[in-house]
Amino acid sequence: MIDLTSEVIIKIPFQDVDIMGVVWHGNYLRYFEESRAALLDKIDYGYFAMKESGYAWPIVDVRVKYIKPLTLHQLVRVRAKLIAYECNLKLEYEIYDACSGERTTRGTTTQVALDMRNNEMCYVTPGVLLDKLGVST
Amino acid sequence: MIDLTSEVIIKIPFQDVDIMGVVWHGNYLRYFEESRAALLDKIDYGYFAMKESGYAWPIVDVRVKYIKPLTLHQLVRVRAKLIAYECNLKLEYEIYDACSGERTTRGTTTQVALDMRNNEMCYVTPGVLLDKLGVST
Amino acid sequence: MIDLTSEVIIKIPFQDVDIMGVVWHGNYLRYFEESRAALLDKIDYGYFAMKESGYAWPIVDVRVKYIKPLTLHQLVRVRAKLIAYECNLKLEYEIYDACSGERTTRGTTTQVALDMRNNEMCYVTPGVLLDKLGVST
Amino acid sequence: MIDLTSEVIIKIPFQDVDIMGVVWHGNYLRYFEESRAALLDKIDYGYFAMKESGYAWPIVDVRVKYIKPLTLHQLVRVRAKLIAYECNLKLEYEIYDACSGERTTRGTTTQVALDMRNNEMCYVTPGVLLDKLGVST
Repeated sequence: MIDLTSEVIIKIPFQDVDIMGVVWHGNYLRYFEESRAALLDKIDYGYFAMKESGYAWPIVDVRVKYIKPLTLHQLVRVRAKLIAYECNLKLEYEIYDACSGERTTRGTTTQVALDMRNNEMCYVTPGVLLDKLGVST
Repeated sequence: MIDLTSEVIIKIPFQDVDIMGVVWHGNYLRYFEESRAALLDKIDYGYFAMKESGYAWPIVDVRVKYIKPLTLHQLVRVRAKLIAYECNLKLEYEIYDACSGERTTRGTTTQVALDMRNNEMCYVTPGVLLDKLGVST
Repeated sequence: MIDLTSEVIIKIPFQDVDIMGVVWHGNYLRYFEESRAALLDKIDYGYFAMKESGYAWPIVDVRVKYIKPLTLHQLVRVRAKLIAYECNLKLEYEIYDACSGERTTRGTTTQVALDMRNNEMCYVTPGVLLDKLGVST
Repeated sequence: MIDLTSEVIIKIPFQDVDIMGVVWHGNYLRYFEESRAALLDKIDYGYFAMKESGYAWPIVDVRVKYIKPLTLHQLVRVRAKLIAYECNLKLEYEIYDACSGERTTRGTTTQVALDMRNNEMCYVTPGVLLDKLGVST
């Protein structure tokens, strides 16, 4: 069984906050990206390892649910969790206020494997990812 | 009946393209933002009019489906369409290659009205938006 | 003699404006980028032509003078002007309010040619740029 | 005598890297911003304290010298140093590779005090900043 999660702490930077005093909704994907990178590092399948493996993993679907706005210099924990890997690579994200523990944001991203030799999508996950996850095939 | 759409033309700028040679997925929300601003301008309910009306309209939900990657200096049409306004403000987006007409991206955003006097969410759309839309209440 | 200038019109987008209600200073480089791309297109030496020519042109120096803040949805003209090309590629930028004509911002960028065969900097401008500029060598 | 410096560690995020495989020049200002925020926090004169003091401190001048490009997931130290405070607030920045210690980038930002009561620039530094710096007036 795999229970793969990762967490990063982020202090909301000045330039991410909009004229309403809250983080512009598009900037949350930066925070997700950072926690995804941490998770993929954990299994040694970050950007460079992906490239070396011959697969690109473009994001094909994003969903974000904004529960409470984030504000300037707020300290947040961003948690990424692997929730599917068999046909694609799906991660779930949750952002929490680092002090109160209150959940402010939820989201998911879905990536698919792209074989870089022929630029074709893979409908089953390539062995390399299963190996990295320690899943017997 | 309302059939409210708006369209902007964007040439993909250099800084939006990532190391893989395609637009980083988070940057698409910039393109949606631009087409949403154009749509809201059409009904004279852009940022300043919203503020004057006493309501903020935070985005509470975002979905994006990436069908084909966008690339450097590609010319695209971004179309926004109003698809719901009764309980919230929901827009649908489609991005098309401006030459081939091929659809590359789909998405939605959902905004809710926030009464700025008491900072409370409105579960029905305030009259001001219905007026702007020319919908009899 | 070369008098090479280019101009783009930009409407300041929502996500570029900070909590103080003005454009965050780092975002001005996006506007310069857009006008630089337009200028380089004019001489048919944009990103793809540069790459084909075997030279990269990294930016090695940036200066910006912020005279008046830019604000949400303001319409501005961004003018780029070639001011040096012999040892490096230097452009000067000016941003003007599109209505009042008032100048709000000045800046420069300096790029140097990098020979992509050996990754070495060129201390004189390669012939390809001089050709594009129509300058006899 | 004041010797005020601050340092932050940053891992270059995916979305900051361009199609050439190096950080787009405009993104460096994000890194400067982060180290400036750390420095201002040190003297308890961050954004909220500035606002409370009745002064805004817009950036009026930026300079960046790019010595070596930054690359994906590179670990860097960004050091900010206060170098002038009498007529304006001037900081100097240096970015170093966190492993080799090699300096990759230099820059400065200059901010001026803006009295928020009358929106007028101050040609001498207001007492509140001198107090925060522990400088006798």
